[in-house]
Amino acid sequence: MEKVYNFSAGPAMLPQEVLANVQSELTNWNGIGSSVMEISHRSKEFLAVVADAEKNLRELLSIPENYHILYCQGGARAQFAAVPMNLLGSNTIADYIDAGFWANSAVKEAKKYCTPHVVNVLTTIDGKRAVLPAKDWKLSSDAAYVHFCPNETIDGVEIRDLPETNKPIVADMSSTILSRPIDVSKYGVIYAGAQKNIGPAGITLVIVRDDLLGKAKEFLPNILNYTTQVDKESMFNTPPTFGWYLAGEVYKWLLAQGGVEAMRVKNEEKAALLYGCIDASNFYVNNIHEGNRSLMNVPFQLTNPELDAAFLEEAAALGLVALKGHREVGGMRASIYNAMSLEGVQALVAFMKAFEAKHA
Amino acid sequence: MEKVYNFSAGPAMLPQEVLANVQSELTNWNGIGSSVMEISHRSKEFLAVVADAEKNLRELLSIPENYHILYCQGGARAQFAAVPMNLLGSNTIADYIDAGFWANSAVKEAKKYCTPHVVNVLTTIDGKRAVLPAKDWKLSSDAAYVHFCPNETIDGVEIRDLPETNKPIVADMSSTILSRPIDVSKYGVIYAGAQKNIGPAGITLVIVRDDLLGKAKEFLPNILNYTTQVDKESMFNTPPTFGWYLAGEVYKWLLAQGGVEAMRVKNEEKAALLYGCIDASNFYVNNIHEGNRSLMNVPFQLTNPELDAAFLEEAAALGLVALKGHREVGGMRASIYNAMSLEGVQALVAFMKAFEAKHA
Repeated sequence: MEKVYNFSAGPAMLPQEVLANVQSELTNWNGIGSSVMEISHRSKEFLAVVADAEKNLRELLSIPENYHILYCQGGARAQFAAVPMNLLGSNTIADYIDAGFWANSAVKEAKKYCTPHVVNVLTTIDGKRAVLPAKDWKLSSDAAYVHFCPNETIDGVEIRDLPETNKPIVADMSSTILSRPIDVSKYGVIYAGAQKNIGPAGITLVIVRDDLLGKAKEFLPNILNYTTQVDKESMFNTPPTFGWYLAGEVYKWLLAQGGVEAMRVKNEEKAALLYGCIDASNFYVNNIHEGNRSLMNVPFQLTNPELDAAFLEEAAALGLVALKGHREVGGMRASIYNAMSLEGVQALVAFMKAFEAKHA
Repeated sequence: MEKVYNFSAGPAMLPQEVLANVQSELTNWNGIGSSVMEISHRSKEFLAVVADAEKNLRELLSIPENYHILYCQGGARAQFAAVPMNLLGSNTIADYIDAGFWANSAVKEAKKYCTPHVVNVLTTIDGKRAVLPAKDWKLSSDAAYVHFCPNETIDGVEIRDLPETNKPIVADMSSTILSRPIDVSKYGVIYAGAQKNIGPAGITLVIVRDDLLGKAKEFLPNILNYTTQVDKESMFNTPPTFGWYLAGEVYKWLLAQGGVEAMRVKNEEKAALLYGCIDASNFYVNNIHEGNRSLMNVPFQLTNPELDAAFLEEAAALGLVALKGHREVGGMRASIYNAMSLEGVQALVAFMKAFEAKHA
């Protein structure tokens, strides 16, 4: 098949113009006779990539000067350990807002380093899964920070509120970063695995506020130490240069598209189209309350799960791929990150209607 | 410039046939209409990549069944912390053979977790830097393991002996892995950043013997825990799929070249040519004893360092690039990993002779 619409939750599709350009310069980048993968991370050519990426990401997210941008490794899983070891200081308590699989995974890792105060914020509204408003979250008074995951990739649940606290807010934005504007100044740390909205798997973006540095545990491996990575400009070890370069290419593409506000408009349009199709039928169902539906990951079930296999097979035959739901949830999941075009969602919706007409 | 000979120490050049093939299938891999970067690490397509890489690496290095192959992140720097936290158990002492910059960097990180017993093995023979024979290394009797770095990338020093011990031997093979046959059964743990002889930066190979698992410190981040990574088949977090795929392509290329024994022959021929050129002149110097010269990284100095800039400039004009020595050593360094062809070394030697004739 020449071209498909790829709804993978991650590693996810990349902007196709970006990928085509990467391909064209893969063996001879910028006319230097080498691949960008084959040059030193400390070469002047690569340092220019780094400087461009820094400038463009600061512009995209309006990142204030007192925040550092780091490129780390190990994804959100590594950050689940890095966050407490970097931020706790002498404190032993941290708040963890829990609305799904990933928030809960962060709690499990944090237990090695502190006593996580877990705040379950899930509720039910009109029989649908929903998140309590922030004013009803029972935060502790003595937490070192408040951790949350605003978009649960597996569950398809989104938290639109910010914790109401004067403690540093730490957000796992792996699946929502760059999908819309955010006010970085409200956060202490933002981190995100790249493989959804930034670039290929294997590089992790960390944005950390200056005043939170310098409090790392002694036994924290240097590779996970924010202060070390700030001092070494994310080159304490040889960084994943190809992923860094590709992230930079995605930033340029985002700017050319009109930035994250243009992404928000596009992402809302895509999501409205898909949720609209689900809600208009009795054949498909999404059981999440409107105010907490993810813009990025749309899980849905066929009311007759015996048709799941046929749905996936007929979709794939039309080039609509990677729609199988996560094993924890079942059914279907369409991930519609920045790189997914409106045409891709239109094609999916057209197929869903035709499949329903055929099998209902 | 269309094509250069790239002597970068890492990220280093890749086999050019491999890179050309990666380019050709970058946007449409195996006819699936997506890049290999854009698919789930748990998809059947990617699991086939994983299985092939496993089989081919086992064949290349004759890896016994009681060893696990892991793909991690964070390079050797992350392993400097992972090794003690995984292997110490209740012990507090480990031996660290020290012959240069990287061995010493491992010691610094290990100090957070144990008392490293540092064994300086450098000596001087005929005025040249050399390594003591293993029988003269003063190992401690109560170490949990013996760590060493058989090839010092920056210093250009190679340790040909293995420690004489019944403790697990741990080797940082970042710059020497796959350059020749090794007897894996003699080691407890072998690790290597990919960016020299395996693939692109951002993925780390770890080969660990089965009986060393299960002793990790409680506070070890799961991302660095060998037992977790074995249990999760290196997918505890989303792995760097593109690097993993590319490593697999390099393994196939190595097998097609005749495997690591063929690499040894080729690498010895390249090194002999280059060291021969240096030794035949009074214009260039390499001050390392013959028995400890690196096959992979050849540092050399111009006896008149005022000519360094001219050397680099004239070399680059001929497409001989990334020859500048590491900032810790100065002068020049030619890294001649598996992907560097004999023709590349011949071109370098021809240039060195011409430069000497012109400037001596």
